[in-house]
Amino acid sequence: MSGMTGSGLFGCLFSSGEADTGDEAWLQAMLDAEAALARSLERAGLAPRGAGNQVTAVAQADRFDLGQLGRQAALTGNPVPGLVRALSQLLPPQAAAAVHKGATSQDIMDCAAMLIAASALDAIQADLAAAASAAAQLAGAHRDTIMIGRTLLQQAVPVTFGLVAASWLAGLDEARQALARIRRERLAVQFGGAAGTLASLGDAGPRVAELLADELGLALPVLPWHTDRLRIIEVAAAAAGASAVLGKIARDVTLLAQSEVAEVREGQRSGPADGDGHEGGSSTMPHKRNPVAAVVILGCTRQVPGLLATLTAAAEQEHQRAAGAWHAEWEPFSGLLRLAGSAASWAARLLTGLEVDTGRMRANTDSAGGLPLAENVAWLLAPALGRVSAHDLIAQASARAVADGSPLRDVLLGAPDLAQRVAAAGVSGDQIDAALDPSGYLGATSHFIDRALAAHQALEACLPP
Amino acid sequence: MSGMTGSGLFGCLFSSGEADTGDEAWLQAMLDAEAALARSLERAGLAPRGAGNQVTAVAQADRFDLGQLGRQAALTGNPVPGLVRALSQLLPPQAAAAVHKGATSQDIMDCAAMLIAASALDAIQADLAAAASAAAQLAGAHRDTIMIGRTLLQQAVPVTFGLVAASWLAGLDEARQALARIRRERLAVQFGGAAGTLASLGDAGPRVAELLADELGLALPVLPWHTDRLRIIEVAAAAAGASAVLGKIARDVTLLAQSEVAEVREGQRSGPADGDGHEGGSSTMPHKRNPVAAVVILGCTRQVPGLLATLTAAAEQEHQRAAGAWHAEWEPFSGLLRLAGSAASWAARLLTGLEVDTGRMRANTDSAGGLPLAENVAWLLAPALGRVSAHDLIAQASARAVADGSPLRDVLLGAPDLAQRVAAAGVSGDQIDAALDPSGYLGATSHFIDRALAAHQALEACLPP
Amino acid sequence: MSGMTGSGLFGCLFSSGEADTGDEAWLQAMLDAEAALARSLERAGLAPRGAGNQVTAVAQADRFDLGQLGRQAALTGNPVPGLVRALSQLLPPQAAAAVHKGATSQDIMDCAAMLIAASALDAIQADLAAAASAAAQLAGAHRDTIMIGRTLLQQAVPVTFGLVAASWLAGLDEARQALARIRRERLAVQFGGAAGTLASLGDAGPRVAELLADELGLALPVLPWHTDRLRIIEVAAAAAGASAVLGKIARDVTLLAQSEVAEVREGQRSGPADGDGHEGGSSTMPHKRNPVAAVVILGCTRQVPGLLATLTAAAEQEHQRAAGAWHAEWEPFSGLLRLAGSAASWAARLLTGLEVDTGRMRANTDSAGGLPLAENVAWLLAPALGRVSAHDLIAQASARAVADGSPLRDVLLGAPDLAQRVAAAGVSGDQIDAALDPSGYLGATSHFIDRALAAHQALEACLPP
Amino acid sequence: MSGMTGSGLFGCLFSSGEADTGDEAWLQAMLDAEAALARSLERAGLAPRGAGNQVTAVAQADRFDLGQLGRQAALTGNPVPGLVRALSQLLPPQAAAAVHKGATSQDIMDCAAMLIAASALDAIQADLAAAASAAAQLAGAHRDTIMIGRTLLQQAVPVTFGLVAASWLAGLDEARQALARIRRERLAVQFGGAAGTLASLGDAGPRVAELLADELGLALPVLPWHTDRLRIIEVAAAAAGASAVLGKIARDVTLLAQSEVAEVREGQRSGPADGDGHEGGSSTMPHKRNPVAAVVILGCTRQVPGLLATLTAAAEQEHQRAAGAWHAEWEPFSGLLRLAGSAASWAARLLTGLEVDTGRMRANTDSAGGLPLAENVAWLLAPALGRVSAHDLIAQASARAVADGSPLRDVLLGAPDLAQRVAAAGVSGDQIDAALDPSGYLGATSHFIDRALAAHQALEACLPP
Repeated sequence: MSGMTGSGLFGCLFSSGEADTGDEAWLQAMLDAEAALARSLERAGLAPRGAGNQVTAVAQADRFDLGQLGRQAALTGNPVPGLVRALSQLLPPQAAAAVHKGATSQDIMDCAAMLIAASALDAIQADLAAAASAAAQLAGAHRDTIMIGRTLLQQAVPVTFGLVAASWLAGLDEARQALARIRRERLAVQFGGAAGTLASLGDAGPRVAELLADELGLALPVLPWHTDRLRIIEVAAAAAGASAVLGKIARDVTLLAQSEVAEVREGQRSGPADGDGHEGGSSTMPHKRNPVAAVVILGCTRQVPGLLATLTAAAEQEHQRAAGAWHAEWEPFSGLLRLAGSAASWAARLLTGLEVDTGRMRANTDSAGGLPLAENVAWLLAPALGRVSAHDLIAQASARAVADGSPLRDVLLGAPDLAQRVAAAGVSGDQIDAALDPSGYLGATSHFIDRALAAHQALEACLPP
Repeated sequence: MSGMTGSGLFGCLFSSGEADTGDEAWLQAMLDAEAALARSLERAGLAPRGAGNQVTAVAQADRFDLGQLGRQAALTGNPVPGLVRALSQLLPPQAAAAVHKGATSQDIMDCAAMLIAASALDAIQADLAAAASAAAQLAGAHRDTIMIGRTLLQQAVPVTFGLVAASWLAGLDEARQALARIRRERLAVQFGGAAGTLASLGDAGPRVAELLADELGLALPVLPWHTDRLRIIEVAAAAAGASAVLGKIARDVTLLAQSEVAEVREGQRSGPADGDGHEGGSSTMPHKRNPVAAVVILGCTRQVPGLLATLTAAAEQEHQRAAGAWHAEWEPFSGLLRLAGSAASWAARLLTGLEVDTGRMRANTDSAGGLPLAENVAWLLAPALGRVSAHDLIAQASARAVADGSPLRDVLLGAPDLAQRVAAAGVSGDQIDAALDPSGYLGATSHFIDRALAAHQALEACLPP
Repeated sequence: MSGMTGSGLFGCLFSSGEADTGDEAWLQAMLDAEAALARSLERAGLAPRGAGNQVTAVAQADRFDLGQLGRQAALTGNPVPGLVRALSQLLPPQAAAAVHKGATSQDIMDCAAMLIAASALDAIQADLAAAASAAAQLAGAHRDTIMIGRTLLQQAVPVTFGLVAASWLAGLDEARQALARIRRERLAVQFGGAAGTLASLGDAGPRVAELLADELGLALPVLPWHTDRLRIIEVAAAAAGASAVLGKIARDVTLLAQSEVAEVREGQRSGPADGDGHEGGSSTMPHKRNPVAAVVILGCTRQVPGLLATLTAAAEQEHQRAAGAWHAEWEPFSGLLRLAGSAASWAARLLTGLEVDTGRMRANTDSAGGLPLAENVAWLLAPALGRVSAHDLIAQASARAVADGSPLRDVLLGAPDLAQRVAAAGVSGDQIDAALDPSGYLGATSHFIDRALAAHQALEACLPP
Repeated sequence: MSGMTGSGLFGCLFSSGEADTGDEAWLQAMLDAEAALARSLERAGLAPRGAGNQVTAVAQADRFDLGQLGRQAALTGNPVPGLVRALSQLLPPQAAAAVHKGATSQDIMDCAAMLIAASALDAIQADLAAAASAAAQLAGAHRDTIMIGRTLLQQAVPVTFGLVAASWLAGLDEARQALARIRRERLAVQFGGAAGTLASLGDAGPRVAELLADELGLALPVLPWHTDRLRIIEVAAAAAGASAVLGKIARDVTLLAQSEVAEVREGQRSGPADGDGHEGGSSTMPHKRNPVAAVVILGCTRQVPGLLATLTAAAEQEHQRAAGAWHAEWEPFSGLLRLAGSAASWAARLLTGLEVDTGRMRANTDSAGGLPLAENVAWLLAPALGRVSAHDLIAQASARAVADGSPLRDVLLGAPDLAQRVAAAGVSGDQIDAALDPSGYLGATSHFIDRALAAHQALEACLPP
C-alpha cells in the first residue's frame, strides 16, 4: 500500500513496473467487487432491474474520499463498511438496497485482493516476457561466446555466455509458467456472507456466487475460502519464485560486472532532465559503471522471502474469520506483488540493454593458463600412457603451472622431462593445443541452448501475449 | 537432519510420520544417485557391463561410516567427495572407474534432495489422505449439527459442524492436489557436471542425463538446474501450503476444545507403558483434557514459514555453483519436509479420533439468545411493516435483549409495546420461533458440504492411493 | 514508506501512532543530515562562515519536488545525488560548494535512517508508556479479582486478573528498557565518504564526524558502519521485541473477549461522523462486540517477524558498499518501525479503555466445579490420611465429578463413601469449602504484582517522560 | 536438536564449534534444572535434608533412555512428565517426593533452554574472541597494505586491508558486547508452577525461585516469564547479530578470493586421513582453491534470519501457557544457537589462517590506471586553475583514459593539450605522481584502525576470557 506505482521517493526503485497495488488500486478493486455483486444480484433477480448498472456507474474510486474511508476503517478494522455507506449514499434507495447484499466485508476485501493479484500478475508476466525475450536473444547470439564457468566464485571449466543466458531464460520461463497457472486456476471469487453460509440469500447464494465469479472473471472455488488461505500462499509463492529467478540473474550481473571481471555492463540511460547524468555514472569516480538495475532488482527481491513467510504464517486463521491474521495479509500481499513487479520491470530493462564484452570473457578464460582444460589433455594422453599415468603426468604439470604461474601448455611442452613423455606418447604440440582449446570442451552446451530456446518458443506459443 | 524419523527426545513431536529426512536417509539417497548414475553410464556404453549392478550392490548406507564422511565433508564443504572415495574403495577397479563419472558433487546432492523430497511427499500425502478421509466423514456425519459460526472470535451466525469439517476437507484436498502436481512434474534429475556442460562426457551427456532421470524416476528438466532453484522453492511452498492448512485445522481444534467452548475434544491414547497415563491427561488437574495433537501440530507448522523464507532467499545463487546459498538449503529443506510430515501425521490421528459434543454446540448456539437470528426475524416482519420499520423494531428489541441479557424471543413477545407491534404485523409467536430456529438460517450450508464431498470423491478417484 | 502516518486507506490501521516513516519524513531526515553536515564543516573550518545556516535554512522538505527526486533516484539507485543537486541549486555558490562535502550517498541515507529511528522510537516509547501505565492501573485495581488461569487454552488453576495485567506490564516495561538502551547507545552517525576513509577530507575527517554526531544528536561509532549493519538489526530487533509483547497482550484480549469467555471487552469509541456507528459494533449482529483494537494490533505485529528476518539477512553486505542488500533495508526498516508504532498506539488505546467483567471472571472460575483446587483439598486431608491416601481419595472424587458434571464439593461431601472418609479424617465441610476457595490458592500472586509494580515505578523514575 | 555437536553427515558443517544443543544436551539441562530445584527446595526447608544431593547424584543423562522419554513426550506434548517419572523411580521415596515439587513442565523446559543458551553463548563467545583476535592481528599487520575499496562491487577509491580487517574486528567486537550483555542480564530462571502463581508452594514460592536462580547461575526475573518471551527473542537476536557479522566477513572473503581478484585465500588443512586431500583443493581442477570455510559460514548464517523470525512470531503466547507457540520455539532456538556457533567456529579458523596477497592487492589497485585518485589530482590543480577549471580538466582526462584504457597519468602528461595546461598550472610530473599515489589518499584510515584496535583492547580487558 505504498502509494501509486512508481511514485514517491523510492517508487521508481521498488514500485516500478505496472503492478499497481497502491491505495487507489485497492479502492477501485473493492468498488469493482461491489459493482459486480450488484450486477450479479440483478441477474439473479435479487436486485431491481438497472441496479447493477447504477452501482457500476458510481463505483469509481475518484468519487470517494480515501482519507475519510481510512479513518472509518479504524472503527471496524477494515474499510468496507465505510465504503458501503459512502457508496449507498451516491445511489437512489432501490439501488442502494442492493449494495453489498448477502456479502460481508471479507468477501469484498478478498475479491479485491484477487483483482489486485490478477492485474499485478499480468503486469509481472509482461515484464518477464520481455526479459525472457532478451535472454533468448542473448542465448542465441552468444551461443559460441566462450567464457569461464565459475563455481564457489572460482574459475572452473569453460561454458559459453549463451549457456549462461539460456539458464536465465529457462528460469524465467519456468517462473512464467507457474504464474500463468496460478493466474488461470487459483484466482477465485470469495463470497460467503457473515460466516460462509450465504444465509441471508436463502437458497440463492450459490447462484449469486457463480454469477459473481463470472462478472469478476475469477474462478468459482469449491467452497468460500474466507479462512482457507492456500490460494493466497500460492499466489505469493509463485510471485516469490519469479522474484527469486530475477534475483539470481541480477546477482550474476553484479558479479560479471565487477571491475576485475568486467564481462558485462549495463546499458546507460540518461536522466529525466539535463544535468542528471547517466544511469550508473559517477562524476567523481569516472571509472565506475555501477550496475544500478541489478542492484535495484536485488533491493527488491531480497525483501520478498520475509513477506512470503508472513503470508504463510498468516494462513492459520481462526474459525469463520480470523482475528488479525487476515488483516496481516493485506500489506505483505500488496508489497510482495509490487516488489516482484518492480524487479521484473527492472530486469526487462537490464537484459534488453545488457552489454557483453566478449573479448574480456575470452581473456578471463585464458588467464587460467589452460588449467581448466587439464582433464581434457589427460584424456588425450590416456590411450598411449594408460589412464593412471596420463592423469599423473597432467597432475604434475598442473602443479608446476600453478606454482610458476605459467600456462599449462608451456610447462607440458617446455619442461624437458614432461615434453619427452608427451612426445613418447606420440602426441603432438598441435594436439595439445587442440585439447587446450576451450571451444572443444563444451560438452552439451549447444544442445542445452537449443533445448532452452525450443522450450521458450513452445511457451510463447501457448501463453497469452 | 535431526536424526531418524521419530527418534530422539523431540522426534515424536516434530519428526512423526514417515517423512524421513535424517542423515541416514540422505546418505542412502546419495548412494542411490551414484548407483543410478553407474547404471545409466553402463546403459549408455560408458561403463563396463556389470558396473551398474556392482555399484548398486554396495551402495547401501550401512556399509559406510557416516561420521567419517561427515568429518571429510569439512574439507570440501559437502559429503560427496568423501563418499565417492569410500564407494570406490568397495569396488573392483573397473567398476570404481565408473563411479561418479561425469558428475559433480552438486549433481549427487541435488538428486538426493529430490529423492528425499519424493519419499517425504509420498509420506505426507498418505497422512493428508487419512486426514481428509476423516474430515469427509465428519462433514457427512455432522451435516446438520448446528453450531455457532464465529468471526473475530465472536459468535456470529449459525453454521453446522459439517460445514466446518467440509472447509477443513476442502483445504486438505487443495493441498493434496498441489503436492501431487509438484511430485509429478517438478522433481527432476540434476546432472550437469563441473559447470553445467557435461563436458567430460563429450557428446554423451544428454543421453546419460535422460537415462539417469529414468533410473531415478525423476523428470528430465530443460536444463541442469544447479543454480536455478525454482523447483526447490516450489517443493517447499507446496509443503508449506499443506502445513498452513493443517495449522488452521489445529488452531480451530484448540479453540473449540477450550474449557469454555468444549465443542470438541481429542481422542485419548494410552502411553507406551503402564503408568504413563493418557494423552492430554493431567493427574494434578483432572478437569484438563489438553489438545495435545493440535498443540504439537501448531508446534510444527509455526516453524515452517521461516524455513520457506530461508529457501526462497537461498535461490539467489552465483554463476554455476553458489558459494553458501546452496549449502544453506540442505537443513531447511529437510526440516520443512520433516515438519510438514509430522504435522500431517498428527493431523491424521487428530481428525480420526476427534470427539464432537453436539449438545454443547447447540447450547453454545442458543446462549446468544437468538440474537444471531435477529436479521432473519426482521425479514419475517418486513412484508407487513416495511423493511425499514421491521429493521428498527428488531434493532430495538435486540438492544433490550443485550442490555437485559434476555433472549430476543422473550423481549419481542414479552415486552408489551413490542409484542403489540409484532401482533399488529400479523406474525405469530410460532412464526417468530421458526425464524429464530438456526436450522432455518443455514443458507447454502448443505450445498457447500455436497460440493466439498463431491470434489473429495473426484480427487480420490484420480490421486494414487 | 507508506505515505504519511495514519493517512491512506489502511493508514489508521497500520500507520497509527506518531512513528512517521513516510516519504516526507525520509526526505526531511536526509535534508537534516545534509544541513548538519554543512554546519559541521563550518565548525571545522571547511566551509565558509554562514554556510551551515544557509544550508539549514533551505533544507525544508516542502521546497523539494519529491516526485522528481524519486525519478532521479532511478539513475543511481538512491535519491541522494538528485537531492544534493536540487539542494545546491537553492544556494549561493559558496554555500553550495559545502553541500555534501566529504560525504557519500550512503552517509546521508544511513544518517537519515538513524533520525527516522530516533523519532519512531520516541513515538513508540510514548505509546508503550501509556500502555504500561494502563496495565499498572489494571494490575493494582484487580489485584484480588479472581479469574481462572489457562494453559494450552484449558482452564488450569486460579490466578487474578491483576496478575495477568502485571505480566503484561512486566513485558511492556522490559520492552521499554530495551528500546531506551538502543535509543541511547546504538543510534550512531554514519560518515565515511566514498569507501569509509573520509579521504577527501584529508586529516579533518574524524573531527567532522565528531561534529556531525553532535549536530545530529547521534552517537559517534568506533568506525563508520556502512557495511557493518549490526545496529540496524539491533534497532529492528528491539522494535520487534516490543511488537511481540504487544502481540501477546492483544492475543490475550481476543481470547478473553470471546463470546463464551467474555471476561473483558474493548471500550467503544464513536466514529468520525454521525452514522459511522461505534467501534467494534455491528448493526446486523447486535450481540457482537468485535475486539477491533486487539485485532488491528495483531494485524500489525504479525507482519513484523518477516521484516526482521529481511533486515537480518540484509546485513551480509559486500566490501565497502553493498550491491542491493543495503537498498533492501529501507522499506522493511521503515515498515517495521511503523508497524511497531501502530501496534503501540492501538495498545495504549486498548489498555486504557479495557472493560473488565469481574463477575464473569468469577463465574468462569467457578464453572470448573472446584476441580482446579483439587490438589489443595488433598493437602488438607494429607496430615490425617497420609499423602498417598489423600491423593487417591481426591483423584476418585475428581473423576466422579468430571463424569457426573458435579462440583467436587458435592461429590466429596455428598457421596456417602467419600464423605465418610472425609469425616473420618476430621475435616469439616467448612474446611473443605475453605480449601476450595480460589482466593486461598493464589500463592505468590500478590507478591508478583508488587514486584511488577515496583519495577514499573523504578523504570518510570529513570526513563525520560 | 540435530544430534551431538559436530557429528553426523552435516555436523562438521552446521554444528561445528562447542555450542552443544543436541538432544543429550537438552536432557542434561532438564536434569540439571530438576536437580537444582531439589537443592533449592531443601535449602528452603521444603524437601528432606539430603534430597538435593540425592537427586543431583542420579540426574545424569546417561542414566535415562532418551528414546523412551521421546516416546512418552507424545502423550503430553513435552518430555518433562516422562522425565519426572523416570527420575523419581531412581530415588528413594522421600527424595522422589521432592522431585519437581512446585514446578510445571514449562519451568523445567525453560530453565533448560536458558542453560543451553548459557553454554552456547559461552562457546560462541570463545570462537568470536579468537576470530576477533585474528582480525586485530590482520588490522595491525596490514595497516598500510594498499588495496582498492569497492562499492556496489565496483572499484572505488583506495583503502588498506588493515582497514578492512578493522571493520571486521569492529563488527565482531560489537557482537561480542551484545552477547555478553545478554549472557549477563537476560538469562533468567523460569519458575511459576501450573499458572505462574507458585500456588502449590504457598508462601514459599518466591524464596524457592530465588534459590533456584542461585543454584542455576541465572538471573531472577521480575515475574515468571512463561508467556513473556522477550528474553527468548533477545538471546536469538543477539546470536543472529553475531551470525550477521560473520556472514559479512565470509561474503568479503569469498569475493576477495575470486580467481579474478585473488587478494586473499584460505589456509589449507589436511583431511582426517591419507588420501582425503586438502581443504578446498580439487584434484580435477588444480587451479581451484575453494574458500570452503567462508562458504560453510554462509551456509550457516543464511539459515539464521528465518529462525529468528520464527522465534519472534512465536512470542505471541496465549494466557498462562501457549498452545503450540511455545513448542515451536525449541527447535529453532537450538538451531539458531547451533548455527551461530558453527559459523563462529569456522570464522575463527578462517581468520586465523587467512593468506593475504599484498602484491595482488596493489596490482588490482593500480589496474584502474589512477582513476580512483582523479579527484585528488583535481585538488592539486585547483589553487592554480580554480576549482571548476581543475575539475573540468581532470574530467576530460579521465574520460579519455577510460576510452583509451590508458593510465590517467599518461593522458594527463602525454596528451599535448592537457600536458600544456598542467604545466601552465606550475604542477610538475612528480607532483602528479604524488597525487596519484594511493598511499597519499587514505584519509582517516590509520586513525580508524587505531580506534578499532583500542576499542578491542578495552573490550578484552573487560570481557571474561
